[in-house]
Amino acid sequence: MKIYGKQIRTVDFKNNKLELIDQNKLPFEVDILKLDKLSDVVHAIKVMQVRGAPAIGATGSFGLVIALQELDKNNWIQGLNNAYESLLASRPTAVDLKNCLDEAISSITEVTEYDKALEIITETAIEIANRSADSCHKIGEYGAQLINDGDSILTHCNAGALATVDFGTALAPMRIAFEQGTKFSVFVDETRPRLQGSRLTAFELHQEGIPYKLIVDNAAGHYMQQGKISMVITGADRIALNGDVANKIGTYTKAVLAKEHGIPFYIAAPATTFDLETKSGKDIPIEERDGDEILKVGSVYVTLPEIETANPAFDVTPAKYITGYITEYGVFSIDRLSELQEILAKRKSN
Amino acid sequence: MKIYGKQIRTVDFKNNKLELIDQNKLPFEVDILKLDKLSDVVHAIKVMQVRGAPAIGATGSFGLVIALQELDKNNWIQGLNNAYESLLASRPTAVDLKNCLDEAISSITEVTEYDKALEIITETAIEIANRSADSCHKIGEYGAQLINDGDSILTHCNAGALATVDFGTALAPMRIAFEQGTKFSVFVDETRPRLQGSRLTAFELHQEGIPYKLIVDNAAGHYMQQGKISMVITGADRIALNGDVANKIGTYTKAVLAKEHGIPFYIAAPATTFDLETKSGKDIPIEERDGDEILKVGSVYVTLPEIETANPAFDVTPAKYITGYITEYGVFSIDRLSELQEILAKRKSN
Repeated sequence: MKIYGKQIRTVDFKNNKLELIDQNKLPFEVDILKLDKLSDVVHAIKVMQVRGAPAIGATGSFGLVIALQELDKNNWIQGLNNAYESLLASRPTAVDLKNCLDEAISSITEVTEYDKALEIITETAIEIANRSADSCHKIGEYGAQLINDGDSILTHCNAGALATVDFGTALAPMRIAFEQGTKFSVFVDETRPRLQGSRLTAFELHQEGIPYKLIVDNAAGHYMQQGKISMVITGADRIALNGDVANKIGTYTKAVLAKEHGIPFYIAAPATTFDLETKSGKDIPIEERDGDEILKVGSVYVTLPEIETANPAFDVTPAKYITGYITEYGVFSIDRLSELQEILAKRKSN
Repeated sequence: MKIYGKQIRTVDFKNNKLELIDQNKLPFEVDILKLDKLSDVVHAIKVMQVRGAPAIGATGSFGLVIALQELDKNNWIQGLNNAYESLLASRPTAVDLKNCLDEAISSITEVTEYDKALEIITETAIEIANRSADSCHKIGEYGAQLINDGDSILTHCNAGALATVDFGTALAPMRIAFEQGTKFSVFVDETRPRLQGSRLTAFELHQEGIPYKLIVDNAAGHYMQQGKISMVITGADRIALNGDVANKIGTYTKAVLAKEHGIPFYIAAPATTFDLETKSGKDIPIEERDGDEILKVGSVYVTLPEIETANPAFDVTPAKYITGYITEYGVFSIDRLSELQEILAKRKSN
């Protein structure tokens, strides 16, 4: 992605350090974190300096590299397993983290020599990151075919370049369609409580020159009723075997609204977001985050600190609301989801 | 209502001054504005120091009193008509303002003497305010009959004592049910962009000791899906002849969600909110407010000032989504709405 004209990746690995754009400082400051301690990587995921399922996945695999660099060359195996566990526990809902950690750690299952292990796991992590960026491009190419002149697309949260290694999931089709000259515009939900829509998605679209309007989460229903939204595209944090999707809180609401108005509702997500081990949305753990995310904006309280809150970070959109899954293997409707799952299972066993 | 143990009205008239709780300073500061200039009253409505359809209505009628106090005793009639127009134009969507202005100005149609006019219009404005508080009590009594032990009620925006002269519309049934010992709890939508839920409704319920949880607007759908919401009650800014309701942006979304989950959706509103001259929701003007309400929280920008926005303040919920209208004359379903309208028309012609 380009930020102020400079080509940059959300998650990168340079000079043995993990580089992350600190998303808590965006859009006011483009600060690149350079991390070489496992504890800092776990912290970055927990406090959402890095967020978005594919970005967290890539960060996790680089986290193992960082962990291994810190460990004793003669006694690293148990330490690396501990690092795997602490990275896995850093956020519970997105499955890309587990998928990427598993792929990275599996690549050195048979390796006992430290230097060899470090070499291979670094290569694997870089490969995961590059593949993720490539997948996003392909998602963009397939998804752009769904966008026509005159369309107005609603998106929720940030499933842009900032939620991935690069290029984005939900925003990828918009990038490609815009490059191809399709005339469309975007409604961006601000996405309370953490305002990923206003801070990140609107910022990305503004940087690209793609026409958009930022709205409060309450306004999407109104614009659908007025016939001003022709399509919804969001990302996903985890897609269960039956096609149910866990994504940012509020996604389910947009899906219900889309159904009520007969508007197609698409999920854009790479293979790493599909969870072949979770049967349905009911089995996906929903992270409950601190109520201060609602009581404060930034560091400032917007109401009294003693106000009681409930703050689920995600919700589950049942498969019946979803028109199609836009992936790097094409666009799949629910009745063709098993085809995609076969491709993914085959890929995993290779 | 009681705030920190002190009995207080949202809109009051003392020593020839209009007293308003400044709602932009709540919940951090309970500041009582004492206004004796028409321009300050118009400003208070525009910048939402006073808000909520019934509170704006009462403020409008007192605004005419304030205007008359300022005018030349020998040349006041045109000035009062100008005051009527500038008050009416201060906010476009809520109809209580027009209804209350009309009632106050009609009370002196035949009067030419200044002192007599001032005496009568002051009496009328006080009567409008007292009647409004009484109506809210009755709304509470009728509405409380709908609330049962174990219920969990979602409310949107603030339709509490702070949106009325006193006692509230949507919150009135909760106040009475709580007094009666019914065991229920409330989910409070924070209600972006102006956070009336977190700043006002949660504050009121907290003051009363009624159990509640503040949630982001994105979370209501999730809790409905989980079976944790049994009823929705909101206020209204204008109810058209066909039963369509204009209310705070996001109300329509909650109504669609309620329908999808088979949850009853009630509107609580006094007679003054019913507009017998507007046929349907399509005819209700929707106020578009400044985009800075989205870009800023308080005085602090949450994203870049150059981000493009769209900021409708209200939406329209079609009658088909509404289970019942809780009024001071009882609870009316859509098929009995004409009965209510006959009562209101008769009252208006008296």
